[in-house]
Amino acid sequence: MAPQSKLDQVISLAKRRGFVFQAGEIYGGSRSAWDYGPLGTELKENIKREWWQTFVRGREDMVGLDSSIILPKAVWEASGHVATFTDPLVESLHTHKRYRADHLLEAYERKHGRPPENGLADVRDPETGQEGKWTEPQQFSGLLKTFLGPVDNEEGLHFMRPETAQGIFVNFLNVVQASRKKPPFGIGQIGKAFRNEITPGNFIFRTREFEQMEIEFFTAPEDAHRFFTEWVEDCWNWFVDLGLNPENMRRFDVPEDERAHYSAGTIDFEYKFGFTGNEWGELMGVANRTDFDLSSHTKGSGTKMQYFDQASGERYTPYVIEPSFGLTRSMMAFLVDAYTEDEAPNTKGGVDKRTVLKLDPRLAPVKAAVLPLSKKDDLAPTAKSLAADLRKRWNIDFDDAGAIGRRYRRQDEIGTPFCITVDFDTLEDQAVTIRERDTMSQERVPLENVQSYLAARLLGA
Amino acid sequence: MAPQSKLDQVISLAKRRGFVFQAGEIYGGSRSAWDYGPLGTELKENIKREWWQTFVRGREDMVGLDSSIILPKAVWEASGHVATFTDPLVESLHTHKRYRADHLLEAYERKHGRPPENGLADVRDPETGQEGKWTEPQQFSGLLKTFLGPVDNEEGLHFMRPETAQGIFVNFLNVVQASRKKPPFGIGQIGKAFRNEITPGNFIFRTREFEQMEIEFFTAPEDAHRFFTEWVEDCWNWFVDLGLNPENMRRFDVPEDERAHYSAGTIDFEYKFGFTGNEWGELMGVANRTDFDLSSHTKGSGTKMQYFDQASGERYTPYVIEPSFGLTRSMMAFLVDAYTEDEAPNTKGGVDKRTVLKLDPRLAPVKAAVLPLSKKDDLAPTAKSLAADLRKRWNIDFDDAGAIGRRYRRQDEIGTPFCITVDFDTLEDQAVTIRERDTMSQERVPLENVQSYLAARLLGA
Repeated sequence: MAPQSKLDQVISLAKRRGFVFQAGEIYGGSRSAWDYGPLGTELKENIKREWWQTFVRGREDMVGLDSSIILPKAVWEASGHVATFTDPLVESLHTHKRYRADHLLEAYERKHGRPPENGLADVRDPETGQEGKWTEPQQFSGLLKTFLGPVDNEEGLHFMRPETAQGIFVNFLNVVQASRKKPPFGIGQIGKAFRNEITPGNFIFRTREFEQMEIEFFTAPEDAHRFFTEWVEDCWNWFVDLGLNPENMRRFDVPEDERAHYSAGTIDFEYKFGFTGNEWGELMGVANRTDFDLSSHTKGSGTKMQYFDQASGERYTPYVIEPSFGLTRSMMAFLVDAYTEDEAPNTKGGVDKRTVLKLDPRLAPVKAAVLPLSKKDDLAPTAKSLAADLRKRWNIDFDDAGAIGRRYRRQDEIGTPFCITVDFDTLEDQAVTIRERDTMSQERVPLENVQSYLAARLLGA
Repeated sequence: MAPQSKLDQVISLAKRRGFVFQAGEIYGGSRSAWDYGPLGTELKENIKREWWQTFVRGREDMVGLDSSIILPKAVWEASGHVATFTDPLVESLHTHKRYRADHLLEAYERKHGRPPENGLADVRDPETGQEGKWTEPQQFSGLLKTFLGPVDNEEGLHFMRPETAQGIFVNFLNVVQASRKKPPFGIGQIGKAFRNEITPGNFIFRTREFEQMEIEFFTAPEDAHRFFTEWVEDCWNWFVDLGLNPENMRRFDVPEDERAHYSAGTIDFEYKFGFTGNEWGELMGVANRTDFDLSSHTKGSGTKMQYFDQASGERYTPYVIEPSFGLTRSMMAFLVDAYTEDEAPNTKGGVDKRTVLKLDPRLAPVKAAVLPLSKKDDLAPTAKSLAADLRKRWNIDFDDAGAIGRRYRRQDEIGTPFCITVDFDTLEDQAVTIRERDTMSQERVPLENVQSYLAARLLGA
C-alpha cells in the first residue's frame, strides 16, 4: 500500500480529532458541506478573530458589515451573476458522470505541458481511461435558488449569495452616510456563501456551502493600482505572520481570459495543499473590480452609487480593490502547514514518533491542557481549580486519563501550545510543570504565576 | 402627531447610526432580512463573544460546534419538520393579504380578554376593520428549500435549517467520540437559521433569515428536570449580568397545547419590547426535548444515537435540555433596554436633552472615542497615535469634526463608554481628559496610563 500523503494524514487527523465531520454523515453524508467539530470551530473562530482584528478593527480606514445571505433576484441580475456566473458542464457518455469542461482541459494541459489540439475530443475519461466521449458543454448556473413567501413562483424567487461582496456594494451609500468614512476606505465582512459546484471535492477545499472573509476597498480611480499593490502585500504578510511557510505559497497573476467578468486584474495566492494531479490550490485572490459593481448597481437600481467629495466638489464612482479570502481554505492551509512528524523521548530511554500541529498559539484551538499526574483525589481539586481559573480567559482542556506521555501526544496532535502537569510536588511547592509543545522543554512555574506565564506566551490570544 | 414610542426611537436610531440597514434597500428593500452595519456588526459580535465565553469556552461541560446550514431532506423528515413545521395560513378576502390564523386569534384574545366564540369568523380584517372574511386555513411549510446539483429534482432537494439544533443532534456520536465528553455535557452553536415566516415584521424581531445561539445539553433522563431548572436560571442571569433590567423580562411557562412537537416542557423568556398590540415578545426559550430528537434520528438513520456508559455498563438515549436564544432578538432587547433620554449641561449654562445608550461596556460597539479638541495640526499626531495604539486591542472611534459637545452627543447615542479628549494642555502635561458616558464625569489621565485605565473599566471586553 502506498504511504499516506501528508494531506491524507491531515484529513484523517482532522476527522479523528473532531476538527471536521462530514455533514449529515448518519444519513449517508454529503460532499456539499462539512460540519466543524469542537476543535475546528475554535480554530475557525481564531482565524476569524485574527482577520477581523488585523483588517477591520485594527485599521482606521476599515469598518465591518454583516449582510444577509438571501437577496432578491434583482441584485444578482444587476451584478451580472444571473447572466454570467456559470460553469461549462459536460457529461461522459461512458459513465454519465458530470465534469467541468474547463477543469478537464486544465488537467490535460498540466499533464502534457500543452493544451489538447482538438479540445475535449482529446481528453480521456478520468475514471475509465477510455477515449473521451462527451456531451456538448452546457452553461450551468452556480447560483442556489430558494423561494420566499407562500408560493414557489417568480415573485418569491431569491438567490443565496455566491459571494459576500454584493451585500457590501448594495450598502455602500448606507455605510458612507452612517460611518462618515471617505474613500480611501474599506468594508470587511465574514460570512457564508453558496455555490452550486458541479464537482465538490478535496475535503473542505471545494464545497457548495463555504465561508469567506472579504474586503471591498473603495478608492479614487487614480489610486486603485497603488492600493491593489498594498493589499497584495498586506494579505501575504497576514498569512506569513500567522505562521504559513512562504515557501508553500505562490502568487499567480491571473491572465485576462481567465479572470472573473468584473476584474481588471487579479492576483491569486495559491497554497501547496498537495492534491493529487495538481498540488496547488487557490487560497485567496486580490482583484481590481474597477467601478464595475457600483456602476452596475447604479444601472440596476436607479440609485447613484457614487461618492461626492465635499472638499473638491467632485462626484465620482469609486474603484474597488477586493481582497477575498476563503476562510475554510485558510483553515485547511494552516492545518496542512502545521502538520509535523518528529520524535519524542519515551519512558524506555528511546524515542517514539510524534505527530504535532505547530499552529501559531493565536490559532491553536486549545491554549493549554491541565493534566493531573494521577487520578487520585488529592490532586484533583488543585488541578480542577487551576483549569476553571484559566478557562475564564482561554479555551482549556482537562485530561486525567492514561499515561502522561500519551496525554502529551494527544495535545501535541491538536496543537496545544502548553501542557500543565499537576504532580505530587505541587501539593508541597504550590508549583506546576509547564511543557512547551514544539521544544518539549519543561519549566517549573508557581501556581500563582501560571496566568501571567501563559499570557506572555500566547501573543495576545 | 402622536409622540414616537421608545421602540420607534430605537429603530430610528439604529437605522440612522448604521446598526441596522434594510436588506436590498436600493432595490425596494425586504422585510425578510436585515443587514447589520458597522455598529450593529460589532454589537452582535460582542453579544456572541460573551455568550460563547459564558456558555461554551468558560464551562468544563460544554463544547462548540459549527454545522452546515443546508442539510438533506432525510434529516428534516426524521426530525419531524417536513411533517409538522407548518403554520396555518389564511387570506383576507377583502385585501388578499395573508395572515397566520393563530396570530389573528391571539390578537383577538388579547384585545377582548377571551377567545372569539366563533373562531376566525369573529375576527375583523386588521387593515380595513371590515367584518372578517377568510379563506380556510391551509398548512404552510416554514422550511425553505433549495436544489443542489445540476437538476431541480427530488434528488437535489435540500432544506435550509429552521434551527441550528438538528446539526447538533446528527453529530451527537461524532462529538462524544472526538471530545470524549460524557453526559451530562452540552454542545453550543451560533449560526444562521431560516424560516419562511408568513408575516415577517417588527423590525429585526421576526425575519425569515435570522441568527440563533443554541445549546443542546445531554443528560441522563432522571437528571433532566434538574438541569432544566439550572439552565433557566443560568440563562436568566446571563441577560441580567449584561445589563438587561429584570423588570422588563418575564418567564412564560408554555402550556402543553402551545408547545413545539418535541417539547415536554418549555419556559420562554419574554422581553417588553413595546410592540403595538402586544408589548411583550419572545427572547429565548428553554425546552425539555426529552429523547425525542435522538430517538427520531435513530429511527430515521438506523444509527443508534445512544450513550454507552462504560462505568455502569448501561446504554441509554440521553434527554436533551435546550436553551435556544435569538441572537438578533437579544440584540434588539439590549438596544431597547439601553435607550435612555436624560439631560446634559450645555455651553450656555443650561441643559440639553441627551440620548444615551447605556449598554454594558462589554457590549458597546465602540469602546472609546479619541477626540482632538481642535483640528489644528499640533494636536493631530498625539491624538492619532493614541487612537492607533488603543485600536490594537479595542474598537476605537476617531472624531475631529464639530463642537466637542456635539461629538460627545454622537458617542453617547451609540453607547461609547469613554470619550478621550486631547486638548492644548496635552502637549504640556502629556495627559488627556477621559469622560465617562453615564455620569458625564471627567478625569485627567496621563497618556501612558490610558490603556490600563480603560482595561480596568471595560470588564475584560
